[in-house]
Amino acid sequence: MEHPENDDLYKGLKVNKGIVDVPTVNPYLKKRVQRRQYTPAEYVEGILKGNITILSQAVTLVESAKHEHQQIAQEIIEKCLPYAGKSMRIGITGVPGAGKSTSIDVFGMHLLKKGHKLAVLAIDPSSERSKGSILGDKTRMETLSREKDAFIRPSPSAGSLGGVARKTRETIILCEAAGFDTVFVETVGVGQSETAVHSMVDFFLLIQLAGTGDELQGIKRGIMEMADGIIINKADGDNVDKAQMAASQFRNALHLFPPTESGWTPKVLTYSGYYNIGVKEIWDMIDEYMAFTKKNGYFEYKRREQAKYWMYESINDTLRDTFYNNPAVSSMLNQTEQQVLQNEITPFVAAKRMMDLFLGDISSSK
Amino acid sequence: MEHPENDDLYKGLKVNKGIVDVPTVNPYLKKRVQRRQYTPAEYVEGILKGNITILSQAVTLVESAKHEHQQIAQEIIEKCLPYAGKSMRIGITGVPGAGKSTSIDVFGMHLLKKGHKLAVLAIDPSSERSKGSILGDKTRMETLSREKDAFIRPSPSAGSLGGVARKTRETIILCEAAGFDTVFVETVGVGQSETAVHSMVDFFLLIQLAGTGDELQGIKRGIMEMADGIIINKADGDNVDKAQMAASQFRNALHLFPPTESGWTPKVLTYSGYYNIGVKEIWDMIDEYMAFTKKNGYFEYKRREQAKYWMYESINDTLRDTFYNNPAVSSMLNQTEQQVLQNEITPFVAAKRMMDLFLGDISSSK
Repeated sequence: MEHPENDDLYKGLKVNKGIVDVPTVNPYLKKRVQRRQYTPAEYVEGILKGNITILSQAVTLVESAKHEHQQIAQEIIEKCLPYAGKSMRIGITGVPGAGKSTSIDVFGMHLLKKGHKLAVLAIDPSSERSKGSILGDKTRMETLSREKDAFIRPSPSAGSLGGVARKTRETIILCEAAGFDTVFVETVGVGQSETAVHSMVDFFLLIQLAGTGDELQGIKRGIMEMADGIIINKADGDNVDKAQMAASQFRNALHLFPPTESGWTPKVLTYSGYYNIGVKEIWDMIDEYMAFTKKNGYFEYKRREQAKYWMYESINDTLRDTFYNNPAVSSMLNQTEQQVLQNEITPFVAAKRMMDLFLGDISSSK
Repeated sequence: MEHPENDDLYKGLKVNKGIVDVPTVNPYLKKRVQRRQYTPAEYVEGILKGNITILSQAVTLVESAKHEHQQIAQEIIEKCLPYAGKSMRIGITGVPGAGKSTSIDVFGMHLLKKGHKLAVLAIDPSSERSKGSILGDKTRMETLSREKDAFIRPSPSAGSLGGVARKTRETIILCEAAGFDTVFVETVGVGQSETAVHSMVDFFLLIQLAGTGDELQGIKRGIMEMADGIIINKADGDNVDKAQMAASQFRNALHLFPPTESGWTPKVLTYSGYYNIGVKEIWDMIDEYMAFTKKNGYFEYKRREQAKYWMYESINDTLRDTFYNNPAVSSMLNQTEQQVLQNEITPFVAAKRMMDLFLGDISSSK
């Protein structure tokens, strides 16, 4: 029973009106934080002018999982495409502890002094492993991160390797359109990500250490074969002899491999990232490679092959997504899997049935 | 002008009627060669009775690329499924020259003497590489190939690894239904085929040689990690010490690997295929593994995981086939690829367009 009009009559426990909760967010702040959403044309204009803030925001759209963000992102990328493709794309890998962050810092400063503009990106599909990635902690590239001509962007957050790699590849396009003439794509070198990086760069650089005699065991054979250059870090002080010995071991190992498709003979150099020794020679090597492959046509050939590769990778990814997210498929998938597990049908028959369901659903739903 | 009725009047060059071409094929032969096509039920009956001729013919259907053969094959396989699954499936790999054929010959005879029935299959997707495969030349397993309780079948002819592997996997089912209680799946060990073999066997055996100090370099790290047992061949005569040294090197190397999922510690043994030394110990090891994994449930778990793996592999294969063979897709694929190569659209946009074409074609064609 309520007697609102007699409220004052109640003489028992009384609840004071009290005060309204103090807002935890400054109401005046809202206006400032909420920024107008740019149109794709405005993004493109900003990127082409080299506006780093707008570039960063566009990359965020590329990395977003939201459908509406992806739509804008694809429009931006497409408009940037004619202005892209003109950078040196360099993949950098090496086991954790090889000194990748120090090396990228010193390589980057070397390039900036020569008048280059550098974007540093990364592929690191596993969030768990991100501890090992230099870009997990951007501040580790102390000098470079303070430079206006350097754009450092950590790996897109965890997802499938294919998805992360695609985002990084699309970010390259935006960076190139924004005037960055050199792009580093770094990977921590623990899994399949080297292949992804290799398929989006012109030059693949492997950083190694002179170690305990296990030099060749420490890396996967496939990665050695991908490298256009192997550089042995920490060739300084007492370590110079060891580094040079490691270099000749690597040179011997490289002799065992079949000739490269590019016609380039991979080089092995020693350097010290920390003491900035031998860095010029590394970039001379990379310049030499670029001139060599541009002259013999391999540079252009490889770029085209990479574009094809990514097209078919994207098709296969999209195809799988469409299939497994199809309602008819996903509603029957578990049951079919159980039939396979019970030895009632073969995996191949199961696949055929799921395929028929998929095709049937598409034709009836339109 | 023609005067047919006056043909005989023509007195110039004359063409004689001549004789009818002699047939190059004996017309009486046709009846003998053409055999009655069995019904699926007859195939199944023959297989369950252990009729090797009918088993062979059924395997030929499994391997056939023809649609009508595949339909019959799938019906046979499905009817055989309830009788399958009861064999020991053993994968055998090793680099060319490790003595795989001699070893399989002697292992097989050992098993036959113990009353087993053995099917020897192979996966060798590359026709070019088939020279290296022992089963390219079946006669190299001299003793075994004369035994009635041994069924030796070369790898299905060249095709995609996925296709070849599926056919081999389905052949296992037929062999098991025909009463073979042990199945060897051999691979020449040059590429990705080990993974395919590993995903269809219970025990994975790696044959190695005591070599020139390069033992560990010669094989891919991934293959070592797959092995449930490593056996060093040619441990005879002067070579015994070297083989035992290699064995202890392998044992040390195995210590570096993380524990296996099965809980089993992979063993390293020495033997001589040629002199038939140490063969019993190898089969004691495999028996021990089977008992161990059946007790801890891993045997059953792995079989189920393998069935699931093959289901999803089949789905992905079927999906790609359907997509790329779609007329709308295949008619536009080249043009879209060119647009990607001309930097007009991104690989991702290209993939999306192809996908839309595919889905559109399916919904309109019904």
